[in-house]
Amino acid sequence: MAKITVLGAGVMGTAFCLPPVVNGHDVHLVGTHLDHDIISAMQAGKPHPRLGVAISALTLYQHEDLAQALAGADMVVLGVSSAGIDWAAEKLASTLEHAVPIAALTKGLSADLQILPEVLRSRLPASIRSDVNLLAITGPCIAGELAARRDSSVTLAGDDDVVLEQVKGWLETDFYHIWTSRDLIGSEACAALKNLYALVIGTAKGFFEKAGKADNGALMHNLPAAMFAQALAEMRVLVTYLGGDAASVDGLPGAGDLYVTCQAGRNGRMGRLLGLGIPFSRAKAEYMAEDTVEGAELAKTIAEAVLTACREGTLEATKLPLLHLAISMVTQDADANIPWKQFF
Amino acid sequence: MAKITVLGAGVMGTAFCLPPVVNGHDVHLVGTHLDHDIISAMQAGKPHPRLGVAISALTLYQHEDLAQALAGADMVVLGVSSAGIDWAAEKLASTLEHAVPIAALTKGLSADLQILPEVLRSRLPASIRSDVNLLAITGPCIAGELAARRDSSVTLAGDDDVVLEQVKGWLETDFYHIWTSRDLIGSEACAALKNLYALVIGTAKGFFEKAGKADNGALMHNLPAAMFAQALAEMRVLVTYLGGDAASVDGLPGAGDLYVTCQAGRNGRMGRLLGLGIPFSRAKAEYMAEDTVEGAELAKTIAEAVLTACREGTLEATKLPLLHLAISMVTQDADANIPWKQFF
Repeated sequence: MAKITVLGAGVMGTAFCLPPVVNGHDVHLVGTHLDHDIISAMQAGKPHPRLGVAISALTLYQHEDLAQALAGADMVVLGVSSAGIDWAAEKLASTLEHAVPIAALTKGLSADLQILPEVLRSRLPASIRSDVNLLAITGPCIAGELAARRDSSVTLAGDDDVVLEQVKGWLETDFYHIWTSRDLIGSEACAALKNLYALVIGTAKGFFEKAGKADNGALMHNLPAAMFAQALAEMRVLVTYLGGDAASVDGLPGAGDLYVTCQAGRNGRMGRLLGLGIPFSRAKAEYMAEDTVEGAELAKTIAEAVLTACREGTLEATKLPLLHLAISMVTQDADANIPWKQFF
Repeated sequence: MAKITVLGAGVMGTAFCLPPVVNGHDVHLVGTHLDHDIISAMQAGKPHPRLGVAISALTLYQHEDLAQALAGADMVVLGVSSAGIDWAAEKLASTLEHAVPIAALTKGLSADLQILPEVLRSRLPASIRSDVNLLAITGPCIAGELAARRDSSVTLAGDDDVVLEQVKGWLETDFYHIWTSRDLIGSEACAALKNLYALVIGTAKGFFEKAGKADNGALMHNLPAAMFAQALAEMRVLVTYLGGDAASVDGLPGAGDLYVTCQAGRNGRMGRLLGLGIPFSRAKAEYMAEDTVEGAELAKTIAEAVLTACREGTLEATKLPLLHLAISMVTQDADANIPWKQFF
């Protein structure tokens, strides 16, 4: 039996606990400073307020008790949002006493285009930093479906086959399907970038609402389909640039996760508002003030590094028209004009 | 001004006429023996009965007048359904007097796994056979949207850059976006295979209807997303086997066209019925008797060749679990059981 400690009691961190619990492992869920009420509710036997599911046989902690939750852990799972990475890194740096595998559910890229697991590693104490085995767990996996035990598929990426197989053994169930990958950078970059591209593709919903059905009853599926293919092309350019394997884009972490992200979620909701013609700053303030739109946050975070790399020619700007559109919409309130001429 | 003759007045053949008409070319649309009423209606100034759009400046013919329509044509466009390829080949073989580019909107594979444009070529008179320049035009392009002048994107594939650029010049408009490709086999194979895989992915809709929302409100998006990524992996195996370029799978002809085909259409409708637990033969007879389900037809057509190749080891059966599922559902009324263990 392994001791698995999950930091972050949002929907994904909590839903993730289910497979190892089902497999009989000793699972510990620690809320962040923002999760106090969630942990209290679950400690009182109630379901997770946003996930709508109660997971039994879970040991629950407020963040003040992180040290206790980490003691003797065989794996730490990072379940905070990308915005929570600094908080989590600080907490782990001051509390983690031994080098264990750290698996990131958290997706994102830093302003200098590092994947978040590497950002976390750089903040750990020098004594354990190089011994920590980093892993990433990427979708297509909507948390609510996983919590409801609906078939969900993930890539478990890392650079040590022995660790990958061990962790897969702890986590895989008949509803949680796992494939391993040696492409940590590519898998994690895909998981971050798919939010940004789902936002761009989501503009098609807004265009369609504005235009309505055509006189002949036609809808508007051709447009997002072309953007979907273009998004994959751009993700291949970016993953390669970041040092990952473009093949991850064509598999579950890229095409699969982008597909699911285009079906539902906050990035698509923001995209729809932009497609309706509402500038980003107004759309955010008036309609999604309380929501974290990860794709928009990512566009802001990486804008400067991407634009610099394009100016310097290390990235080919002409191959990234949708990325530039996302950045200009989010940082300059630009209109959602599809750059057809630069596709493919 | 080019003379462009389109054979087949179904929704795609007819919608395709719009871009060259808009560009001022001389466009001739010839109905098949099944299109008599459509041509008569359009000749009477009515809109195409299924497309809901009238295209002006189009010269219309019943199939008896094919010779007149073909005289002096600069390009012939094959707009018949895959089931109509034999009829079209016979007609063209007996009527076509000079070697012109033939562009296929028709998608499919023959029982010996040839792409349909090559099947057509093999039926042409020896005198012109080798001089005919074959092209394929593949989506993501739902005909009704193209007819309504909604942004639609296609790949124009062939093996002669000069011809590709000339034809692109005739066809491209501000709503019909064209990219050229030298991968005729891969593009055409993707266009055929996407119907089969959209049928398989469509089973998820049926699974979801049977299961309903989970207690926590969860839907069922993770499942089709994983199948989508697996479908792309299988299409890469098949396209490579057929002699095409796997890169086409990752672009507009593969990922883009599969995406749009999963959003709407008859293949997905059949998949839903199979996912509900209705065997194929009953689903076809009771619910879709009048519909051509191209993905199911393809599964039947290629079943023997695929199974033989797998037995002989020229295709790796373990890499094609969804193809085998499609074949067993369509030819043996097998249940829609997702072969998770064989994914990726």
